[in-house]
Amino acid sequence: MKKLYVIKIGGKLIDDKESLHKFLKQFSLIKEPKILVHGGGKLATEMAGQLGINTKMVEGRRVTDKASLEVATMVYAGKINKEITAKLNSLNCSSIGLSGADNNLIQSIKRNPKPIDFGFVGDVNANSVNTKFLQLLLKNKITPVLCAITSDKKGQLLNTNADAIASAISVSMASYFNIIQLMCMDKDGVLNNDTVVKEINGTSFRQLKNKKVLTDGILPKIETSLLSVKKGVKEVRIGNAMQLKNLINGKSGTVIK
Amino acid sequence: MKKLYVIKIGGKLIDDKESLHKFLKQFSLIKEPKILVHGGGKLATEMAGQLGINTKMVEGRRVTDKASLEVATMVYAGKINKEITAKLNSLNCSSIGLSGADNNLIQSIKRNPKPIDFGFVGDVNANSVNTKFLQLLLKNKITPVLCAITSDKKGQLLNTNADAIASAISVSMASYFNIIQLMCMDKDGVLNNDTVVKEINGTSFRQLKNKKVLTDGILPKIETSLLSVKKGVKEVRIGNAMQLKNLINGKSGTVIK
Repeated sequence: MKKLYVIKIGGKLIDDKESLHKFLKQFSLIKEPKILVHGGGKLATEMAGQLGINTKMVEGRRVTDKASLEVATMVYAGKINKEITAKLNSLNCSSIGLSGADNNLIQSIKRNPKPIDFGFVGDVNANSVNTKFLQLLLKNKITPVLCAITSDKKGQLLNTNADAIASAISVSMASYFNIIQLMCMDKDGVLNNDTVVKEINGTSFRQLKNKKVLTDGILPKIETSLLSVKKGVKEVRIGNAMQLKNLINGKSGTVIK
Repeated sequence: MKKLYVIKIGGKLIDDKESLHKFLKQFSLIKEPKILVHGGGKLATEMAGQLGINTKMVEGRRVTDKASLEVATMVYAGKINKEITAKLNSLNCSSIGLSGADNNLIQSIKRNPKPIDFGFVGDVNANSVNTKFLQLLLKNKITPVLCAITSDKKGQLLNTNADAIASAISVSMASYFNIIQLMCMDKDGVLNNDTVVKEINGTSFRQLKNKKVLTDGILPKIETSLLSVKKGVKEVRIGNAMQLKNLINGKSGTVIK
């Protein structure tokens, strides 16, 4: 089977135009079929603040009310998605920017409002993905650039976790490609006392978790990655977006097995 | 040759959710291949106002500075484009929302800043259009939904007139399809003293223009439409979005010949 890279970026990289462009240049040089999934950075929160929309939090997690959803759609599917796509095309990487709403690419399910109502938030899994459409694009050498906005079957847009989208895409395409799922961030990999852990599997993850050496933020990323591997993704690597080349050739980052 | 409908909507229709949904329902029922081009409505101006961005005007026309371009991209390519696309897919009309930046779909040229600098505004013509990509989508029964954001070859996003995009698309596809270009608005057609003019050609347009019976707003729309017809578009009709069915079967609107 052919290789397919599913690469997820987010956070600070999105906010820093110069770093983002450096990353996109590296990304555009990948010769194999590839899919880019991007998160949102701080811009949506800033924009909501400017518009006087208060971000509601429940148990440390953001609630997406109607106004927040509109801002997220504008920032993620509009500004960030189109800026990335325009840049990639100018680098001769034919790409189109898409949300999950486009051609039912990722049809999510609105999260149950009980016990906690997170508002317009959608959950996804591998069955959510229109793999036929992705294959059509890849076959025609078009790179999909996906933002983390999806929709349910009634056409309601929903805010969705970008890591979960990357995993859903990877798992759904694992029957057709050897998937290399790269979860990029601003750290060099999963850190244990400032040292990059070279490899993590289910057993070592539980050990590291029990020793409480992993930061809270990285836990769901590793869990999502382990699930990808369990469901047929050939390899997941977590590492630094600024070292994409080394992350691809396995010289940096943490391999999830 | 097969028929292809290129349908442009804008203005008040975009601002009124209920009317928009009625229109989209009618649109989704068109069995032939179709492309939807949408303008922006008032939302971008409102959003800019809320963000404290002043709209600069020169000779009655809006100047798109960097901040205005970002708002336009968010509102047109983000919110409006994705809401329309999600709605169409929920109506079983497989569609994807695109800007001109996607796969170089519409590569525009930044308008010469002399004599008047309109800022980040792009001009288009039939040569701007990636017809191969449009054909790929239509062949796969995917309806493109295009917003009026384009990009130049360096990847700079540019604000673009939606009527001009509809015409560029129509002319560029005229070698492959019998194009029916429908320019929808909230009036029943080109009006002469509140009566719909059934048909306009180059000669009658000049006469109506000289008699000053046409409103200023409709002049560029007719000029753009006449140019489309001159360049191979089979038929252009100007009429009411709320009467799409009658506009399609020729029972309402103004035919431009």
